[in-house]
Amino acid sequence: MSKMLVVGSVAFDTIHNALGTHSRVLGGSATYAALSASYLTDVQLVGVVGRDYPDAAVEMMRSRGIDTAGLEIADGETFHWEGRYTDDLTSRTSLRTDLNVFADFHPKIPEAFRHTPYVMLGNIHPALQLEVLEQIDRPKLVVADTMNFWIEGELELLRKMLTRVDLLVINEEEARQLSGKHHLRQVADTLHTIGPKILIIKQGEYGAFLFVNGETFSAPAFPLPEVIDPTGAGDSFAGGLLGYVASRDDTSPETLRTAVVHGSALASFCVEGVSVNRLQNLNDESIAERVEAFRHLVRFTPPQA
Amino acid sequence: MSKMLVVGSVAFDTIHNALGTHSRVLGGSATYAALSASYLTDVQLVGVVGRDYPDAAVEMMRSRGIDTAGLEIADGETFHWEGRYTDDLTSRTSLRTDLNVFADFHPKIPEAFRHTPYVMLGNIHPALQLEVLEQIDRPKLVVADTMNFWIEGELELLRKMLTRVDLLVINEEEARQLSGKHHLRQVADTLHTIGPKILIIKQGEYGAFLFVNGETFSAPAFPLPEVIDPTGAGDSFAGGLLGYVASRDDTSPETLRTAVVHGSALASFCVEGVSVNRLQNLNDESIAERVEAFRHLVRFTPPQA
Repeated sequence: MSKMLVVGSVAFDTIHNALGTHSRVLGGSATYAALSASYLTDVQLVGVVGRDYPDAAVEMMRSRGIDTAGLEIADGETFHWEGRYTDDLTSRTSLRTDLNVFADFHPKIPEAFRHTPYVMLGNIHPALQLEVLEQIDRPKLVVADTMNFWIEGELELLRKMLTRVDLLVINEEEARQLSGKHHLRQVADTLHTIGPKILIIKQGEYGAFLFVNGETFSAPAFPLPEVIDPTGAGDSFAGGLLGYVASRDDTSPETLRTAVVHGSALASFCVEGVSVNRLQNLNDESIAERVEAFRHLVRFTPPQA
Repeated sequence: MSKMLVVGSVAFDTIHNALGTHSRVLGGSATYAALSASYLTDVQLVGVVGRDYPDAAVEMMRSRGIDTAGLEIADGETFHWEGRYTDDLTSRTSLRTDLNVFADFHPKIPEAFRHTPYVMLGNIHPALQLEVLEQIDRPKLVVADTMNFWIEGELELLRKMLTRVDLLVINEEEARQLSGKHHLRQVADTLHTIGPKILIIKQGEYGAFLFVNGETFSAPAFPLPEVIDPTGAGDSFAGGLLGYVASRDDTSPETLRTAVVHGSALASFCVEGVSVNRLQNLNDESIAERVEAFRHLVRFTPPQA
């Protein structure tokens, strides 16, 4: 088992959904990714919070084995995002984004984290993602997430950052935007030329595609009886994915396939609750059961000759 | 191997897409379904065409082993549909629908077809689908396709027809419309109560879900390098699906899983060409290769303990 470093946002979210309003619950890309990965490997967290961030939240992460030595506590308030989902959860509107202490955040990687072989760059400004890469030894695998905001506003920096990334996790729409192509095979071919040799295109409720070494792997999203809140699903996916890779200390296509299934499993737990309610209370057995349910979901008997 | 009966439209299509205009090419739900199924089992076709329908088209179907004894030739012109696709093929506009001889069509099932164990009711008026069921012995499996047009205009007849259908193949949006639910599990539970014990929800470029006996099976759409024309993909899917079931003479969930993969394989060939250009020139090896490619697409190694 190898260690994994997660750099991203640690935040409060205020979420309006069909169940009501959930005020200042735990959120942020690094929170979701670190918690998900914590079931699979040892996780190191780098981020920033304000003085208002509760000790109990830090304690919860530590109790999951997450090394929070890189969680800076700055004067001011914690990053706060507020959004509203439609009742069918297919779209959301950002009502408010208060960067607060995150506005001046520059990731400081503790000495003890600089040789970590597996690195997850959460969806933050590509300049900050580059700052992380400047501070660390060449890892075995760098995973990055990004979004339309950076594709539209910081394309040059984003492309520079992507030349140093091994695995890009990106939403389908954003992958099309970044590549200028529509069909997934063409999208993947184009994005490979920008840098990442491994590509995961997320399709939300439709699952995800992995493109690596000319191979394609398709994983459906787990068809849950009910989805409560999709916030953090993509970050949980990325955390579960890299957590599995780190746990095996192997980046072969075969391991990446199983890693995608673990990412999907963790994402499926994430959306069963608001905030980290479900994610913080899993165990090895529940994860193994869901991975087995995935296997059953896609299993078929090849026709006999 | 058991026989399979297909009832549906046999038509000319005029298609405008990125490649140009394709005038009066072969189309219709029964044409696509019968051709796809013909690679897997013996197919009987029931439909109607006008005097303008070319002998060569009938001959092509016969050369694929399709029994065209139920293909009525009526005075008048063949059903003609004209449509235009957007360049990314994600939506299409119907420009013209001339029912012609199809306007007065009432399926007449030849005596020799009335005991066929596997029956495919293509996407036609639910009253006509019921007329077919009145003329035949209780088959082993009745598959039906439908669309928003009938959900909106003929809901009562459609629901009556569905009480006599074993397997409904339906698009995701239309399944949501018919069930009044959003999440797929809830959609499936609701549609089961309307009648069909087996449900296949098609998600276009995202694949399809099978719901049967409390089990769920997910098949991705095959990620092709290029899609030429999606016309007939759904019908080819249904034809390949039921053709496989008939070839095995078995309706177990295990066989249905592999049948969905065959439906996906035939649909993937269909969209590689305009009209039936690709579908009419397949062979057993090309289909077996694509089924194997599907297996590779979803295969993963479960984690070791």
